[in-house]
Amino acid sequence: MFREMRRKDRSIDREQAENILEKGQYGVLSTAGENGYAYGVPLNYVYLGGNIYFHCAGEGVKLDNIAHNNKVSFCVVGDTKILADQFSCSYESVIVFGKAQEVHDKEKENALTALINKYSGEFFEKGMEYIKNAGMNTTVIKISIEHLTGKARK
Amino acid sequence: MFREMRRKDRSIDREQAENILEKGQYGVLSTAGENGYAYGVPLNYVYLGGNIYFHCAGEGVKLDNIAHNNKVSFCVVGDTKILADQFSCSYESVIVFGKAQEVHDKEKENALTALINKYSGEFFEKGMEYIKNAGMNTTVIKISIEHLTGKARK
Repeated sequence: MFREMRRKDRSIDREQAENILEKGQYGVLSTAGENGYAYGVPLNYVYLGGNIYFHCAGEGVKLDNIAHNNKVSFCVVGDTKILADQFSCSYESVIVFGKAQEVHDKEKENALTALINKYSGEFFEKGMEYIKNAGMNTTVIKISIEHLTGKARK
Repeated sequence: MFREMRRKDRSIDREQAENILEKGQYGVLSTAGENGYAYGVPLNYVYLGGNIYFHCAGEGVKLDNIAHNNKVSFCVVGDTKILADQFSCSYESVIVFGKAQEVHDKEKENALTALINKYSGEFFEKGMEYIKNAGMNTTVIKISIEHLTGKARK
């Protein structure tokens, strides 16, 4: 179902890949639209319990695409550096494939708490208040990871 | 065919969006795979003559996906900053939709030259040599942009 990497010499192990997912500031969600076009959109997210979670408004293109086809990809890029004299660049990146679905109740709450912790840890108390007020209007999507590849060129 | 942005208050004009495309270090190409999964992969690229160009090996998942479905999306993220106390972030990003196709001859040469100029401008002469040697083994893909949206939150 998921093809092997062409450049196996650049693959990194699961732990390194998870480390990139944990520290990444944003990722790009790729979905397939009903109009036949792929669609990539940058998102803040959290890697929690082996899944990717992000939140969004209750309507929009990405939710429509997921309703049409829940088979998505999520890409996080870590450190990159242009190696001008080598006509190349160094980088580290992770690509995951999985199915996206909305989550509710305790799982939604845990994901929102983890997002606050990741992005606004120093304002955690205020963040929890924020969740309580905004939570009802926020949709949380989980990507259940089915396949994960990490790649690096140093 | 391409939906309007939900948050029009955050849209930026064409010139600003093109500026983000011009200065972006990498973008994420989103394609739809024959296995039903979307696929997003980070790439170096150049914005030239209103099109996106990137180069890659002559085989791989992205080329297979494009052969299956040439309707792709390309996303470039500019400056981002976490606004921890606001439970938000500032960002600027551009999403384009278009059709991808391989280019040859003069157009391929121009794209490779522009890539050298963008990423290795200070080694331009050496880069032109590099193209001459590697050019035959490199595939260059053009995304002919059909739709472009830019978004920013400051």
